[in-house]
Amino acid sequence: MTSQSDFGAWMKQVQARMEDALAAFLPAPVETPARLHEAMRYAVLDGGKRVRPLLVFAAGDLFGAAPEMLERAAAAVEMIHAYSLVHDDMPCMDDDALRRGKPTVHVKYDEATALLVGDALQSQAFLVLTDGEAGAAEANRLAMVRELAHASGSLGMCGGQAIDLASVGLPLALDELERMHRMKTGALLRVSVVLGALAAKLPSTAEAAALDAYAKAVGLAFQVVDDVLDATADSSTLGKTAGKDAADNKPTYVSILGLDRSQALAERLRRDAHEALAPFGDKARRLRDIADLVVQRKA
Amino acid sequence: MTSQSDFGAWMKQVQARMEDALAAFLPAPVETPARLHEAMRYAVLDGGKRVRPLLVFAAGDLFGAAPEMLERAAAAVEMIHAYSLVHDDMPCMDDDALRRGKPTVHVKYDEATALLVGDALQSQAFLVLTDGEAGAAEANRLAMVRELAHASGSLGMCGGQAIDLASVGLPLALDELERMHRMKTGALLRVSVVLGALAAKLPSTAEAAALDAYAKAVGLAFQVVDDVLDATADSSTLGKTAGKDAADNKPTYVSILGLDRSQALAERLRRDAHEALAPFGDKARRLRDIADLVVQRKA
Repeated sequence: MTSQSDFGAWMKQVQARMEDALAAFLPAPVETPARLHEAMRYAVLDGGKRVRPLLVFAAGDLFGAAPEMLERAAAAVEMIHAYSLVHDDMPCMDDDALRRGKPTVHVKYDEATALLVGDALQSQAFLVLTDGEAGAAEANRLAMVRELAHASGSLGMCGGQAIDLASVGLPLALDELERMHRMKTGALLRVSVVLGALAAKLPSTAEAAALDAYAKAVGLAFQVVDDVLDATADSSTLGKTAGKDAADNKPTYVSILGLDRSQALAERLRRDAHEALAPFGDKARRLRDIADLVVQRKA
Repeated sequence: MTSQSDFGAWMKQVQARMEDALAAFLPAPVETPARLHEAMRYAVLDGGKRVRPLLVFAAGDLFGAAPEMLERAAAAVEMIHAYSLVHDDMPCMDDDALRRGKPTVHVKYDEATALLVGDALQSQAFLVLTDGEAGAAEANRLAMVRELAHASGSLGMCGGQAIDLASVGLPLALDELERMHRMKTGALLRVSVVLGALAAKLPSTAEAAALDAYAKAVGLAFQVVDDVLDATADSSTLGKTAGKDAADNKPTYVSILGLDRSQALAERLRRDAHEALAPFGDKARRLRDIADLVVQRKA
């Protein structure tokens, strides 16, 4: 059995470890071009709950992956996530000035630097994933690159963002909204689980299907809860501009389902995630805890 | 001995083959999101001399690499190159409306799409490099990802672009200008040669050093000739806005050395490139031909 305090300690430990790993895997701020490197570090370090790294480590623990490979995989996913936030915040996209309670990169620096920070962070993610000896077979590392590239690109995260931009002001059906989020945020959450597993082994078909069902439920839950929080929390709690989606006339779970049914959906997805993990028994407890965290978070 | 017409035929053959490979390695325009995929194809297909793919194939031929791996490596490098052009042309960077004789992506589509096209093309490059069976050892393919990521990121292409932006209006010394170009355009030209070699084998230290010396000379020659053409050719010949660097007050070889000394430097670099290839004998003739092409081109 796992206790909540046990999970809290594990989470803090992974978060602290990731902060060190990310700091080590980014170019030093003194290296030329110093301003770009400083801005890359500003975009990545000291930010967020590190949900994706938590998923990488939880899935890796399930199969006994080598810690250095997990650090690299988690850092790579987090750099992709950070780059996407930098670009999404730019004036030609969501035009947001606040992120994780700090000025966004194009506000703190400038637009050209924000563009290059995002571009360079994406390269850095693939560099970190393939550099160094990391205790995983070459076939697995190649598969990790392939999975991360697929999840990040036009059939994953970037494609979801394109659909999101094209949907502003349109009356999306629930299945269209789901598809968009499965690509925009779900793909990267899912690949976090996949990379954690691949760091240890090539999962069996049954294992891959169970992990996929888990990741799909957690990914959607994540977005439903995001929409609930965007509609109910204030900016200082969120660390970003609250009520932005409604103001931007973007379709959300709350705008389609209403608040109560959205909250019920999140709870159902949490139970789906738990059920998907049943074959793994207690070894999957960290993944279960993360599903709870995603649904019960307040920011 | 190689004849110019022989090289011309080889070049046309590689270019035609690359057009097919790039079309096959990009998501189909009917796939969702269709507009993004259409814009990605617009940015990549039917464009340019494919100098980087030519370098990949020439270096691959030197060591007898498998054709499918060379296609993937060449497509990956070309996608990185294409994404960098899309982002460099955006209003927050060089703000250019014309590229390869066509409207730039943000003009033809919109800024948000241009941003996503570049982001998705970078992901696609790493996907293409690691997808499929391609007749190269896994260790080599991992090394190819690592080299491409390094050449693309903040210590390569993106870093060079950052230095370039920061240099506008500043009196750069020749060695500073060289450093900027070695990162901004040289890194990707160099990695084209490296990837072609890695598609066949892990080069020996001596081979790697010879290829590096060649690539360094060709990379700088490429930029010197670019600056000469920017100062002497017209926009319709170049397929992009001529005289832009001078108008933007950017330091160039021509602004520092003058036209005659710039042309003499390009010719010296061409000879350096030939000399570097001496150990490989006639097998390196395609690489020699490319050095000639780079220096003698008119656009």
